Amino acid sequence: MKKIVVACDSFKGCVSSMEIAEHAEIAIHRIYPECMVTKIAVGDGGEGTLSALVSKLKGELVTCKVNGPLFDPVLAEYGIIGGNGTAIIEMAVASGLTLLPMGKRNPMLTSTFGTGELIKDALGKGCRKILIGIGGSATNDGGTGMLQALGYNFLDNKGEKLGHGGQILNSITAIDDTGVPPEVREASFTIACDVNNPFSGSNGAAYVYARQKGADEHMILELDKGLKNFAKVIKENNNRDIDGVPGAGAAGGIGGGFLGFLNARLKPGIEVVLEAIGFNELIEEADLIVTGEGKLDAQTAMGKTPAGILKAAKKQGVPVIAIGGGVEAVEELNRAGFLAVLPLLPYPVTLQQAMDPKFTLENIRRTLEQQLRIIAFYKSKNV
Amino acid sequence: MKKIVVACDSFKGCVSSMEIAEHAEIAIHRIYPECMVTKIAVGDGGEGTLSALVSKLKGELVTCKVNGPLFDPVLAEYGIIGGNGTAIIEMAVASGLTLLPMGKRNPMLTSTFGTGELIKDALGKGCRKILIGIGGSATNDGGTGMLQALGYNFLDNKGEKLGHGGQILNSITAIDDTGVPPEVREASFTIACDVNNPFSGSNGAAYVYARQKGADEHMILELDKGLKNFAKVIKENNNRDIDGVPGAGAAGGIGGGFLGFLNARLKPGIEVVLEAIGFNELIEEADLIVTGEGKLDAQTAMGKTPAGILKAAKKQGVPVIAIGGGVEAVEELNRAGFLAVLPLLPYPVTLQQAMDPKFTLENIRRTLEQQLRIIAFYKSKNV
Repeated sequence: MKKIVVACDSFKGCVSSMEIAEHAEIAIHRIYPECMVTKIAVGDGGEGTLSALVSKLKGELVTCKVNGPLFDPVLAEYGIIGGNGTAIIEMAVASGLTLLPMGKRNPMLTSTFGTGELIKDALGKGCRKILIGIGGSATNDGGTGMLQALGYNFLDNKGEKLGHGGQILNSITAIDDTGVPPEVREASFTIACDVNNPFSGSNGAAYVYARQKGADEHMILELDKGLKNFAKVIKENNNRDIDGVPGAGAAGGIGGGFLGFLNARLKPGIEVVLEAIGFNELIEEADLIVTGEGKLDAQTAMGKTPAGILKAAKKQGVPVIAIGGGVEAVEELNRAGFLAVLPLLPYPVTLQQAMDPKFTLENIRRTLEQQLRIIAFYKSKNV
Repeated sequence: MKKIVVACDSFKGCVSSMEIAEHAEIAIHRIYPECMVTKIAVGDGGEGTLSALVSKLKGELVTCKVNGPLFDPVLAEYGIIGGNGTAIIEMAVASGLTLLPMGKRNPMLTSTFGTGELIKDALGKGCRKILIGIGGSATNDGGTGMLQALGYNFLDNKGEKLGHGGQILNSITAIDDTGVPPEVREASFTIACDVNNPFSGSNGAAYVYARQKGADEHMILELDKGLKNFAKVIKENNNRDIDGVPGAGAAGGIGGGFLGFLNARLKPGIEVVLEAIGFNELIEEADLIVTGEGKLDAQTAMGKTPAGILKAAKKQGVPVIAIGGGVEAVEELNRAGFLAVLPLLPYPVTLQQAMDPKFTLENIRRTLEQQLRIIAFYKSKNV
């Protein structure tokens, strides 16, 4: 064992990604004192993950005054990494649900305009690669606000320019993109997206997510109808059929807005994170990757941190062992490609005891040490 | 992996030694279809273990009418294995506590005479090797009853032959062994003994065990004084100082009785069992031994099943992995020589859930399969 990479998600409510990595390193160095241990703090790409990346990658933080979900002024930050090539934007800082008190949440009115302003600012600073995290939005506007900020106009059947919010979706008849500057079309957008909802319909943005953003039954019906209409108009104008695309319904349909107008692709959050940190280079020549999360189950194989790491590892033939405070569906995870899936508990405990941070870190250390003892013994034997 | 030996103790109150071995075999054959799996049901050498051995080793059962602890007639069985070379005797069938109702338990009176009669019978049938399990005795007679049955007489200070039970110990002044037949001296006795108590004193037979055999405070004092006196007489007559020997206080001092008069050695029960089943031959050329018990802890390193198996395995350089429903003191167990110590639980559960047999067997299968996947991967890599 010359090189081991430790890249676990945090065990939510228990221990952080880096704490896990540090304790794993102790275990590794007890068995392989000379082993290089690459410790990587990774999140699952959910809300907050991308902004955490900026400081990790020593990016520059930019503060922008933009319009909040209801056009109240908001001071929002985003990051630029790698000189000025790549911007990292969290939608929630400009258009997030937490920016609004409960009584003001209304997806008929809320807009992603501020998110578009952040993008515009980044483009103005020369960025042509934009990574966007879209968790926690207050909106259901199909991304129209974001597009309006970038120069698109949406027109009704009288050719009048429409206003803002989910309420306009059903009235959109035509699109005016004459005011869109060239840098908007030149830029490539990578959207961190961990949901598979289509744009509209019973599994779409409005039906699944609008209620938690303040919509009542009537609004949900209107918003869904609006998303259907907007998809139709996009198809007619841009020749892109986004309605059924998995993830188009993410964050109030902004996923579909990106896909329908811009040079964008949706990727699992973890893949966006791994791409940003150069994970492929970090695991070169590794003999083992240790990943994990609080609970490993059948979901783990579908887009969460360990799965993203497994996918990257497979390309280089690096074996991956997954650890978890609780593990289920182990055979399925083996079939997905995990060399082994290892639980951590030494004896029967309550969930509360299991989530004690000190206990968990000790368990991680013990579990890895026992595994490495086994590996160290047998790798030298031809049995 | 050409050969793996599975030899776990039962998980008490949960799954048997053989059930564990069978499920381990399933896991092994999933990863190594060609691997030879040697399944061994082992107990810890406690009460009942040796008699279970007789049927396993296809021994002959012999029924004897002997004297019980209070000289009531008892029909007792013992076994002869390997032609007529070795007898396997459980002391409890002739001199056991369960042979007496609560109100009759009195270690001043109870005698190991019946155990001696079983030995005499075996010697008469030509056995010269005697394995004896001494758990669960009703006695505190220092083995005097057993020795009386074999021809020894104990005399008081007037040269009078003494009677029976713990009550005589303090009156013994001299020993008359003129009636002991030669086969008693020729035979070798292996005593399965898992306690370390000395013959007398605050940690000796009387103080530690006599109360549960029916003694009151006064009797305990008398019995302890008697054991001290008997040890002194043994030393004077036989030049053997047994009083402080660990295990001399086992089973009411019968341990000391054996050591003071006969060609006897005390061994951990598991070692007696392993010797009887020819464990050393069974593990020849094994690539791995899997052992375990319900709970692995610091005690495990001291004389219980996994420790006995580890000791035998070390002599042949075979690695041992220990599995347990609960594990503690893992580093200590590693230092004792276990290659790895592996718990089984996949997620937080209550003790009751943890002891569900089906759940436990599944956990054993999963745990071993994950380990063997790791071994199979790395043994082929030079990393």
